[in-house]
Amino acid sequence: MSWEASELMSGRLLIVHGPNLNLLGTREPDVYGTATLEDANDVCRAAAEAGGFAVDIVQSNHEGALVDAIQAAQGTAVGIVINPAAYTHTSVAIADALAAVGLPVVEVHLSNVHAREPFRSHSYVSPHASAVIAGAGIQGYRFAVEHLAALLSD
Amino acid sequence: MSWEASELMSGRLLIVHGPNLNLLGTREPDVYGTATLEDANDVCRAAAEAGGFAVDIVQSNHEGALVDAIQAAQGTAVGIVINPAAYTHTSVAIADALAAVGLPVVEVHLSNVHAREPFRSHSYVSPHASAVIAGAGIQGYRFAVEHLAALLSD
Amino acid sequence: MSWEASELMSGRLLIVHGPNLNLLGTREPDVYGTATLEDANDVCRAAAEAGGFAVDIVQSNHEGALVDAIQAAQGTAVGIVINPAAYTHTSVAIADALAAVGLPVVEVHLSNVHAREPFRSHSYVSPHASAVIAGAGIQGYRFAVEHLAALLSD
Amino acid sequence: MSWEASELMSGRLLIVHGPNLNLLGTREPDVYGTATLEDANDVCRAAAEAGGFAVDIVQSNHEGALVDAIQAAQGTAVGIVINPAAYTHTSVAIADALAAVGLPVVEVHLSNVHAREPFRSHSYVSPHASAVIAGAGIQGYRFAVEHLAALLSD
Amino acid sequence: MSWEASELMSGRLLIVHGPNLNLLGTREPDVYGTATLEDANDVCRAAAEAGGFAVDIVQSNHEGALVDAIQAAQGTAVGIVINPAAYTHTSVAIADALAAVGLPVVEVHLSNVHAREPFRSHSYVSPHASAVIAGAGIQGYRFAVEHLAALLSD
Amino acid sequence: MSWEASELMSGRLLIVHGPNLNLLGTREPDVYGTATLEDANDVCRAAAEAGGFAVDIVQSNHEGALVDAIQAAQGTAVGIVINPAAYTHTSVAIADALAAVGLPVVEVHLSNVHAREPFRSHSYVSPHASAVIAGAGIQGYRFAVEHLAALLSD
Amino acid sequence: MSWEASELMSGRLLIVHGPNLNLLGTREPDVYGTATLEDANDVCRAAAEAGGFAVDIVQSNHEGALVDAIQAAQGTAVGIVINPAAYTHTSVAIADALAAVGLPVVEVHLSNVHAREPFRSHSYVSPHASAVIAGAGIQGYRFAVEHLAALLSD
Amino acid sequence: MSWEASELMSGRLLIVHGPNLNLLGTREPDVYGTATLEDANDVCRAAAEAGGFAVDIVQSNHEGALVDAIQAAQGTAVGIVINPAAYTHTSVAIADALAAVGLPVVEVHLSNVHAREPFRSHSYVSPHASAVIAGAGIQGYRFAVEHLAALLSD
Amino acid sequence: MSWEASELMSGRLLIVHGPNLNLLGTREPDVYGTATLEDANDVCRAAAEAGGFAVDIVQSNHEGALVDAIQAAQGTAVGIVINPAAYTHTSVAIADALAAVGLPVVEVHLSNVHAREPFRSHSYVSPHASAVIAGAGIQGYRFAVEHLAALLSD
Amino acid sequence: MSWEASELMSGRLLIVHGPNLNLLGTREPDVYGTATLEDANDVCRAAAEAGGFAVDIVQSNHEGALVDAIQAAQGTAVGIVINPAAYTHTSVAIADALAAVGLPVVEVHLSNVHAREPFRSHSYVSPHASAVIAGAGIQGYRFAVEHLAALLSD
Amino acid sequence: MSWEASELMSGRLLIVHGPNLNLLGTREPDVYGTATLEDANDVCRAAAEAGGFAVDIVQSNHEGALVDAIQAAQGTAVGIVINPAAYTHTSVAIADALAAVGLPVVEVHLSNVHAREPFRSHSYVSPHASAVIAGAGIQGYRFAVEHLAALLSD
Amino acid sequence: MSWEASELMSGRLLIVHGPNLNLLGTREPDVYGTATLEDANDVCRAAAEAGGFAVDIVQSNHEGALVDAIQAAQGTAVGIVINPAAYTHTSVAIADALAAVGLPVVEVHLSNVHAREPFRSHSYVSPHASAVIAGAGIQGYRFAVEHLAALLSD
Repeated sequence: MSWEASELMSGRLLIVHGPNLNLLGTREPDVYGTATLEDANDVCRAAAEAGGFAVDIVQSNHEGALVDAIQAAQGTAVGIVINPAAYTHTSVAIADALAAVGLPVVEVHLSNVHAREPFRSHSYVSPHASAVIAGAGIQGYRFAVEHLAALLSD
Repeated sequence: MSWEASELMSGRLLIVHGPNLNLLGTREPDVYGTATLEDANDVCRAAAEAGGFAVDIVQSNHEGALVDAIQAAQGTAVGIVINPAAYTHTSVAIADALAAVGLPVVEVHLSNVHAREPFRSHSYVSPHASAVIAGAGIQGYRFAVEHLAALLSD
Repeated sequence: MSWEASELMSGRLLIVHGPNLNLLGTREPDVYGTATLEDANDVCRAAAEAGGFAVDIVQSNHEGALVDAIQAAQGTAVGIVINPAAYTHTSVAIADALAAVGLPVVEVHLSNVHAREPFRSHSYVSPHASAVIAGAGIQGYRFAVEHLAALLSD
Repeated sequence: MSWEASELMSGRLLIVHGPNLNLLGTREPDVYGTATLEDANDVCRAAAEAGGFAVDIVQSNHEGALVDAIQAAQGTAVGIVINPAAYTHTSVAIADALAAVGLPVVEVHLSNVHAREPFRSHSYVSPHASAVIAGAGIQGYRFAVEHLAALLSD
Repeated sequence: MSWEASELMSGRLLIVHGPNLNLLGTREPDVYGTATLEDANDVCRAAAEAGGFAVDIVQSNHEGALVDAIQAAQGTAVGIVINPAAYTHTSVAIADALAAVGLPVVEVHLSNVHAREPFRSHSYVSPHASAVIAGAGIQGYRFAVEHLAALLSD
Repeated sequence: MSWEASELMSGRLLIVHGPNLNLLGTREPDVYGTATLEDANDVCRAAAEAGGFAVDIVQSNHEGALVDAIQAAQGTAVGIVINPAAYTHTSVAIADALAAVGLPVVEVHLSNVHAREPFRSHSYVSPHASAVIAGAGIQGYRFAVEHLAALLSD
Repeated sequence: MSWEASELMSGRLLIVHGPNLNLLGTREPDVYGTATLEDANDVCRAAAEAGGFAVDIVQSNHEGALVDAIQAAQGTAVGIVINPAAYTHTSVAIADALAAVGLPVVEVHLSNVHAREPFRSHSYVSPHASAVIAGAGIQGYRFAVEHLAALLSD
Repeated sequence: MSWEASELMSGRLLIVHGPNLNLLGTREPDVYGTATLEDANDVCRAAAEAGGFAVDIVQSNHEGALVDAIQAAQGTAVGIVINPAAYTHTSVAIADALAAVGLPVVEVHLSNVHAREPFRSHSYVSPHASAVIAGAGIQGYRFAVEHLAALLSD
Repeated sequence: MSWEASELMSGRLLIVHGPNLNLLGTREPDVYGTATLEDANDVCRAAAEAGGFAVDIVQSNHEGALVDAIQAAQGTAVGIVINPAAYTHTSVAIADALAAVGLPVVEVHLSNVHAREPFRSHSYVSPHASAVIAGAGIQGYRFAVEHLAALLSD
Repeated sequence: MSWEASELMSGRLLIVHGPNLNLLGTREPDVYGTATLEDANDVCRAAAEAGGFAVDIVQSNHEGALVDAIQAAQGTAVGIVINPAAYTHTSVAIADALAAVGLPVVEVHLSNVHAREPFRSHSYVSPHASAVIAGAGIQGYRFAVEHLAALLSD
Repeated sequence: MSWEASELMSGRLLIVHGPNLNLLGTREPDVYGTATLEDANDVCRAAAEAGGFAVDIVQSNHEGALVDAIQAAQGTAVGIVINPAAYTHTSVAIADALAAVGLPVVEVHLSNVHAREPFRSHSYVSPHASAVIAGAGIQGYRFAVEHLAALLSD
Repeated sequence: MSWEASELMSGRLLIVHGPNLNLLGTREPDVYGTATLEDANDVCRAAAEAGGFAVDIVQSNHEGALVDAIQAAQGTAVGIVINPAAYTHTSVAIADALAAVGLPVVEVHLSNVHAREPFRSHSYVSPHASAVIAGAGIQGYRFAVEHLAALLSD
């Protein structure tokens, strides 16, 4: 599990990347594009900084590690951007963790999950999210951070 | 059916608002927010202009009028942002029209449809959309226009 | 779309007739009876007048026109009696319009829809209705107006 | 099982109240209102008398007792108003009894069952009913008796 | 609840008739035929006697009364013929009672339930029955008794 | 395909045995018993003779051969007893053939199909049958023939 | 809504084209072919004329307009050929209108809808149609007119 | 229906046993154990007394009698322990009665219903229960009483 | 299995008739009409000849024989018209055979299968067919041959 | 139906090929590969011989013929390798035959049926098979024979 | 993963807490109460000690860690109390682990899962559990330990 | 997580064992056999060596660890044999990882999953596998390696 923490500013956003996103850029580029996870993180950092926020970033292939990271956001972060990837469709544990910490959540998907296999159109996370952004590639992270920043500034 | 056309620049985007969106700001503000449709249109205009695009805007409560408007985009517009509202879930005709004109499409929903009644999580439009943005309020239109502009600039 | 407005009294009720109801009396009389739409409207007028209400009456085969009419009731009417006919089972737009205007609603069906094809037993409108009356023929409109008048007089 | 029989006039109507309706007025008043079963019976008596009919009234929490009562209507009553309450959704026996006696039937529900839990939108009784009235409170009994009286006078 | 007990011979069979079967002969004769319940009982008595068995006969419209009767068979009867009628499709209690007493059971239906409404093709009782006979009218009782007698004579 | 024709009397009954019934007596005796197909045929012959009927008997593992045999009954037989075995659940062709010849049909199953795998509780044949007898072993054929004889004697 | 009326001969057929069919020839030609709607209309005219019929032709993207047109056929036309396009799968209103006017109907689809997305294999219109022709391109209209002409000449 | 009432202390608990539980100890002992209903009642009495509560105990095979008993608890009891047995899965009437009286409820099952036939994993009662205890045999009643006592002592 | 081969011309079409179609004209004439299979074949021959094609015709009640015939078309025929009748809904083998030979296929049904029992609206064959024609009686064969001829002449 | 019997050694294995497998090598080679049925048989013969077994081989497009062949294995073969092809998904008769003969069975599919149309992922045969091998092409037959040989040598 | 082992006495019980239970007391207290996990553990320790057992306690957010812990119980523990939390509904791995170690299992849920979202009423674990206790808060652990102790003392 | 790497030869195969397979030989031997995981690994090594391949072997109870291992195969292995065990049915993450690395995959199950609980017949992995082998015990690994070797040698 990689973990990166940038400077604290007016508040921190936790960016959570789910399984296989570490392969971004090389994994099925016709579906997921050629940008890398580091590119996505740069998008998050820039958007957060523009809104006066710092970011903590975590990626893991382990459902439990993602639950741990979300729990740890309690007290350190003011909002969460999450791309649960495959766990979107199978993890009640991540959804429960998001409900438990009670922070505002934006859900991001690189591809348009609503136009793929039927099982990908169900998300355990969505009922706990403020917004869901799918199919906008890594710019979707920018939208998510901007939306979260706007929510937190209200 | 209201219809507004702004100046042509490097290309035009068609913004399509489905049924009951003319009530925006007054309709169930706890679900849809207090911004008006004109506010949403301002967001679209600003985002389009920033990307070098003009916008044509249409709102109608009539499924057929929306189909007409989408068909009319062929030859005049280079992309479509659509919030099909209630027709998201019931209109094969709008989905077929989008497929027929073959322009890039971004689907927007003001509320997080994935966290409401189950029937709102099915969209006939999504398979024809590049991206789907739900729950970000009228800023969702900005994200949609920016994503479309980026797509068209590739 | 036909539209008829009677005198304003202590308040106005909007009577909405959905598709094919203009054929009432000639359309499948074994299912729908031999009374005409005008007969139904007379029933509404009499019941409304008895309760101290005026009626506005609209019939259309166009889903969008029915949405328009329901929206227009905001500010002019104090309650809605609607027989959504075929759109009962397929129109989220009409249901959303009823939710948007927020007036008390009574849903009427001439025939007992619960005893016909299975798809006729699902209504998008019912969750937004105070009462649902099915199978009582055009007297059902009287019951609906009387119930609405009673609700509004509480 | 309580049973009350009024005077015979031009014919008798059987009024059948299902389980828990004896608690009417005290049971979940936000759902069922504050009128009592006796209030509902008064509504029935008045409406029946106005139409030239007498009423027999039965309430029971026992499915079998309701079946017995419906069977007993054969030869004594000319029509049935029934609020099967919880047995609406689970009793084939009551539905079969109604089919067996072959009298005209009107089904009444105090609340709008179509807007509650999904299991409440299925009724075994509806296919055997002439009309179904839901959500009009105890006035629904008046509508039911009036409809039945009209049917029997044709 | 009617109850009739004939002479004990080499053993007793309990014949159980479910709800509305007391109307046999008058109830929907096109579906159920014109023979009466007493005719059916005569068929049972004759067939039982021919096999050296006595019969106890019970009919009730009350699910609980049928459960009571089945329980009471323990120690008095050696087998059960049951036409659960409407309770076939809705009563786990009767099925559990049959399982509890552990006697051989034959299930009878006067009409061919498999050719009627879909809900009539599911039986909670069948998994506890040795044989199921449907559509043979009151002769079905004879077949049931003969089969039970044969089973008990093995 | 084996075929056996007995003497013509007041009329002929066609007895149709479906796939794998030729193994009767050796095939899974705990499910199907130890009686052989010839035993079953003897039961049929005896019951038919007692009723004044002759029997034609056919067994085949071929769906098409069973369809051929049923078609051939038109003009030669006055009724059909069929144990469609596995084809019960999968053959529209046999059901269509039974409908085409229009003779009275009784469906027999040796075991209680309603208490086995769920797919065995659906029969394409039942809607075309007068009666269905399951679980009575080879005596079920006797009941079927007797029922058919009674039907034909009405 | 375009509307074209040819000469009256021995009777008139109404040809109804649903949404997006005005784009025929340019819309997804790999699915719908390169013939235009005018080509389809020529096919209809020729076939009708050969059978001694005149044609009225209507195309609209508006469900309500199609309902209006079908209603208007009562008294002017003797039969209807309809390609409901997207409304095939979602419009109870069109189906009800066809039932209301009670004329013979033939349903046409340019593509083989039975080999596309599952939702395209359900038609609200088919239960009201005499025949359904799918996948034969614009020749399907000829088959439809010829079948209708034959029906009307019986 | 048996009914037993012990001394009133700081409050009374109603213990409700559903159908076939009177056979406890003899009925399918491999599923339900060898303890009798009286043993279960002793467990309830002891646990209640320890918590300072008296118990009223009712067992019936009649759904209506159980509804009557639950209704009667209003004003006499402060909480309900119920093992609805077979009615767990089929009785909306009992669930409605529990909702109507509005007392805290604990649901008990002797066997682990979640590991048996699929229909046994659905309970109409559970949404109205504070806790559900399954599979702990008659000790489950002790847990239920203790939980109820704790709830009532808060 | 009957098999008839006409003269070879510019190419041969295989006409395949499924089970029970040999009874055409006598089988349920209200559903299937009074024309015979020979009438249908005459329609095929005439239409084929008009298009410059010869026909081979096969009818069988045996699924396997139909598979054999379809396989044999490889190398001898240039297209297939098939009315799979009952096997439409149950035969993957016939569908696989059509896929295997890779010839253009037109599926014909005499009755409008889309307006009958639900199971008749699913076809394993349709995904392998170019067109599907239902409800046009034996003229449907003419339409099928004409469509096939047109396809083969492109 | 082709049938080939090789020499008897320590025991015989029956190899059963279902419908359309006679076309192997020419049928949809992208799905099924270019090896022929004779190639597959050579694989079986070699593997069987290596294990000390002889093979009997049968291929048929007729469900009934496959049932006949499986029945005939009783007494001649010690195990069965079956590729039921299309009948995998539709034939209860073949499954019943396999259950009836009671020999160990291995099920083979050339393609990975689990990655194709959903209906291909259900097999009536699998519950009666010891092992299922899919997607390994004709080598799958080798694996099947080797597994069967190993089973029989235990 | 936290792990605590108390003294060995007459045997050890493994207490397994699933994901997010480490937040107990702070997480959604209206759903889960204000007691902490340590409080729950104290309840377990006390109940175990009273029964003569020691406890090992593990909590983890990682499905795999829970599987590891369950496996490790083989040889060290004599029974398992598990609150699988979110993994109840999604983990076949945990259920398989429980089946693999073959120890008696009691399943605990703090809240009444049967009265929450529908997906929470399905448990992969229940078929492997002796008892299931839901909604009794941390006292549920006491009931579970006492039941397990009783089971192990039989 | 255990990990074992053998010598590199003409290429490496990754062998992936899912949860609970470390217990092989002791876990439910009637379902999974008595061979141990090491026995299975020996089978893999021998088969790989025979085909000129080396093997890397990993077993873990952690879904994330399996995802990590599959990702790590990119660049080191030329093919994957995976027995996902319980994760077969619940892990989209493992399926996505397999799709991401894009290597040929063979799926193995020790038992015949198609003949067990219904949930075991669905695999998220199968659509990404070349072949699926179930029920052949540890010899299934040999078949898988041989098939993979053959694929890689083509």
